[in-house]
Amino acid sequence: MRATLIYGAGDVRVEQVPDPRIEAPTDAVVRVLVACVCGSDLHQYHNRSAAAEGATIGHEFVGVVEDLGRDVTGLKKGDVVIAPFVWSDNTCEFCREGLHTSCRHGGMWNANGVGGGQAEAVRVPQAAGTLVKVPVGEDSPLLPSLLTLSDVYCTGYHSAVRAEVSARTTVTVIGDGAVGLSAVLSARRRGAERIILMGRHKDRTDLGREFGATDVVAERGDDGIAKVLELTRGDGTHAVLEAVGYLDAYDTALGVVRAGGVISRVGVPQYEEANVGFGRMFFRNVTLTGGVAPARAYIEELLPDVLSGTVDPGRVFDAAVSLDDVPDGYRMMNDRTALKVLIRP
Amino acid sequence: MRATLIYGAGDVRVEQVPDPRIEAPTDAVVRVLVACVCGSDLHQYHNRSAAAEGATIGHEFVGVVEDLGRDVTGLKKGDVVIAPFVWSDNTCEFCREGLHTSCRHGGMWNANGVGGGQAEAVRVPQAAGTLVKVPVGEDSPLLPSLLTLSDVYCTGYHSAVRAEVSARTTVTVIGDGAVGLSAVLSARRRGAERIILMGRHKDRTDLGREFGATDVVAERGDDGIAKVLELTRGDGTHAVLEAVGYLDAYDTALGVVRAGGVISRVGVPQYEEANVGFGRMFFRNVTLTGGVAPARAYIEELLPDVLSGTVDPGRVFDAAVSLDDVPDGYRMMNDRTALKVLIRP
Repeated sequence: MRATLIYGAGDVRVEQVPDPRIEAPTDAVVRVLVACVCGSDLHQYHNRSAAAEGATIGHEFVGVVEDLGRDVTGLKKGDVVIAPFVWSDNTCEFCREGLHTSCRHGGMWNANGVGGGQAEAVRVPQAAGTLVKVPVGEDSPLLPSLLTLSDVYCTGYHSAVRAEVSARTTVTVIGDGAVGLSAVLSARRRGAERIILMGRHKDRTDLGREFGATDVVAERGDDGIAKVLELTRGDGTHAVLEAVGYLDAYDTALGVVRAGGVISRVGVPQYEEANVGFGRMFFRNVTLTGGVAPARAYIEELLPDVLSGTVDPGRVFDAAVSLDDVPDGYRMMNDRTALKVLIRP
Repeated sequence: MRATLIYGAGDVRVEQVPDPRIEAPTDAVVRVLVACVCGSDLHQYHNRSAAAEGATIGHEFVGVVEDLGRDVTGLKKGDVVIAPFVWSDNTCEFCREGLHTSCRHGGMWNANGVGGGQAEAVRVPQAAGTLVKVPVGEDSPLLPSLLTLSDVYCTGYHSAVRAEVSARTTVTVIGDGAVGLSAVLSARRRGAERIILMGRHKDRTDLGREFGATDVVAERGDDGIAKVLELTRGDGTHAVLEAVGYLDAYDTALGVVRAGGVISRVGVPQYEEANVGFGRMFFRNVTLTGGVAPARAYIEELLPDVLSGTVDPGRVFDAAVSLDDVPDGYRMMNDRTALKVLIRP
């Protein structure tokens, strides 16, 4: 089959690789219907060291069950399924706590002999725990919105859950990428009435307003902080959902969070050290939370509104490519000519 | 009157200063019955730059109301009162949320013309909001335990509250100082059944066991981390209460916190930057919380058990000095020959 391989920064190729097949009795093989490129894939696209051998990439997909190991329960061939961006058994104590990303028997795509989502098909370990069956056909127009439950919508939602966003909290979302916009949608879902979106791409922040943002701040850095403080009587907001991952976004978060408030990070941090000192964090009792989203924990909760069309998180996809054109999809996202690129193998 | 002044690292003197008097109609003047030296005073004792003029010091005291401004309600001369380590109006929205340390009209002792607790008397701004009247006499044997409600017991409790310690959470407390031991007592109060105390002073950890610690780990650094992991099947604990403030304690906290768990800091951080990166924090969904404890928020809740003798947090005081001997008190705490020094002016 064909799969996307990354050979290093800026070097993404689509090549023939061996077909995935059942290796453990808990595996499934899923044929990919829709996949996509993630902002975190872009971090690799920027920074990955060049190597002679390519590595599979992609961790978001919706597909059809093609084959099943003998121990997989609850699924049958032909089922349309969502694959969250970390696989997990959904039964260990971490999964029962909703922390599927720390599953005792789980793992990441594109590691330890498991492939990636930007391909024709994928072997899915712990299939019974990982995959969520959805009652739609292979040609459903809902596929893009269902695909956001693999990652971006659940990731935005995780940021809002961890920040305990509610009708009583004001919210700043930092970043107008697909995760930031999903965080806006999630904050609105949880009842927030004041949602300030920090982003400078008007087409994206316009979508953010449709998703529930009440204010948009296009300025960055100190100017952006000043603007948010101006909008909040100098206090900042109770919750800050950080959906970028760069250190300047972290510093902005510290600048706009209210005393006693929460910074909830879901942008993958591209730094190791940051300010957690007395003046900016400790004296003000600011909490830092978030992390890699256990998407699997949220799919059942978010699914009904997606199936009913009450929300349409798939609007974050503003471009689509075939599998052969995935390298173009990376370029479009890297150039910011596309917000998020859908892949239809 | 006499007051303690710090002139720089290692240089604490007791000198004559003007008597405090009512300056605003919301002030009270409180004669100090008991005060003490705080671990955070020791940070000044280690690091403060030398200056020609001394600065008052001390922020924990129980005393008697000597004088009242005309707008102070709820108090009368002769009342015995606890002064929390930050003064506040107890009515603004931050106070109503329990974040008295961010009170819109509050402030710190030893700043902006307000004196400190290691003195014969103190002017207390926002007295009606700040002071908590207690039904004891000036010679009550409960005074040391009541004094812990100024700071250390409430600070330990804050760490446990912020970490959401409950009967369902395992706990590590880092630090066997007065705050760490208070954190043990607080974790026990909140129902934790497994409390690992990291500390290497046997007399202190023995008291920690009496306060509720179920395990003591004397090793530090990587050895200490390994020991806690060994005690917790390799997982670490749900809550880590960090009561030291040095960067190595922060790193230990990251090493012993369970995935999805909470590090709650109440040791005043002696660093600005620390690791908040992908591997140690983000991937594991670790939360960092805590901060300067709003002691005022907890006094009413913790007071009944202190008054009834159900708990005896005053056991952290293992030495006492007169006001004139406060410099000796600093030396004793600095040399670790005393855990926490009571001052009886």
